Amino acid sequence: MTDIGGARGRFLTLEGGEGVGKSTQARALAAALRARGIKVVETREPGGSPGAEAIRELLLHAPADAWGREAEALLFAAARADHVARVIAPALARGDWVVCDRFVDSTRAYQGGGSGMDDADIMTLHAIGSHGLLPDRSLLLTIDAEQAAARRQARGSAGDDRIEGRVSAFHEAVNRGFAAIAAAEPVRFRVIDAAGAAEDVTARLIAAIDDLLP
Amino acid sequence: MTDIGGARGRFLTLEGGEGVGKSTQARALAAALRARGIKVVETREPGGSPGAEAIRELLLHAPADAWGREAEALLFAAARADHVARVIAPALARGDWVVCDRFVDSTRAYQGGGSGMDDADIMTLHAIGSHGLLPDRSLLLTIDAEQAAARRQARGSAGDDRIEGRVSAFHEAVNRGFAAIAAAEPVRFRVIDAAGAAEDVTARLIAAIDDLLP
Repeated sequence: MTDIGGARGRFLTLEGGEGVGKSTQARALAAALRARGIKVVETREPGGSPGAEAIRELLLHAPADAWGREAEALLFAAARADHVARVIAPALARGDWVVCDRFVDSTRAYQGGGSGMDDADIMTLHAIGSHGLLPDRSLLLTIDAEQAAARRQARGSAGDDRIEGRVSAFHEAVNRGFAAIAAAEPVRFRVIDAAGAAEDVTARLIAAIDDLLP
Repeated sequence: MTDIGGARGRFLTLEGGEGVGKSTQARALAAALRARGIKVVETREPGGSPGAEAIRELLLHAPADAWGREAEALLFAAARADHVARVIAPALARGDWVVCDRFVDSTRAYQGGGSGMDDADIMTLHAIGSHGLLPDRSLLLTIDAEQAAARRQARGSAGDDRIEGRVSAFHEAVNRGFAAIAAAEPVRFRVIDAAGAAEDVTARLIAAIDDLLP
């Protein structure tokens, strides 16, 4: 879906736990691509299209026990199906590149690694909802657990939604989930050290997609 | 899930197109069961639990092109997963009977028969979301197409949601979908003539679950 004779754009995702700087780096990566003359659509999950944003509200601003594991996975898959159909696939078809802050690998790490949902079931939902679309490159930002906890704390109420409020053991399970997913797909994934100055991290991201650049 | 040593209640669903009198008959059937000393939970889909009702709002009160086929199927499956986990399964576990106005067979007839979604995919979503729970008996109410159109029209704005507003060819495809599902599962399904006086239809429903009554 993402590479037919060079006519299609490239699909890049940023992944990782809370506090690793994904949103900042997504903006910086998009800017760096634009500086190279590439048209870029910046988007994020959950959300990214009007329908998906409405589902995001149901997911993130609800009491902690609002959704069971299965309903939550189905809602994420529904939001993603809308986002892919309305935003991502049309952009790639136009030849634009897409930089997306979180995608199906976040569902796998959070609902799979974090909440015990079966990874094969998550990928089945992705196949039915979004034709199994996968990024050309997924960039996993990592910092050590202590730094991440400090950054989450520094964000205070900005990070005060239902999923970010979960305890530290959960975040560690999520990080193990991401590490396992990245290790299983070494061509699609690059693990990026997100410590240090933002410009240095951005330079690492650019280096990690160098083979995809025109 | 519905029949462990007589300890569990029975799960009955009413199915059919708009205008066949499902809601009226669901109430009448529940009343008839209560008159026999059975504890009954009356519920309906989409909706039936607070989370599922919130998803119902997203589904039914949106512009006609608000959701693609896949996102719509995932949202129905998410609502059903919540409804089963929070209302239906706990009621059956208590030994109550459940009378539900629409269930997975409506998704199969509307999104499958009506909108071209693959039936196997719909059942896969049901397996992942709701452990594949199926009713002990599904009662398909049918009347001829002209009568149904007249009843839909008589309901006027009460039926003025996004799915009821679809054209006649769609309703015919839905009815063919229901007929095919019922024919494929003759033990679970009974096809009930919904023409004539409401009391007569209720009597037919009771006769169609006679083998399940204590």
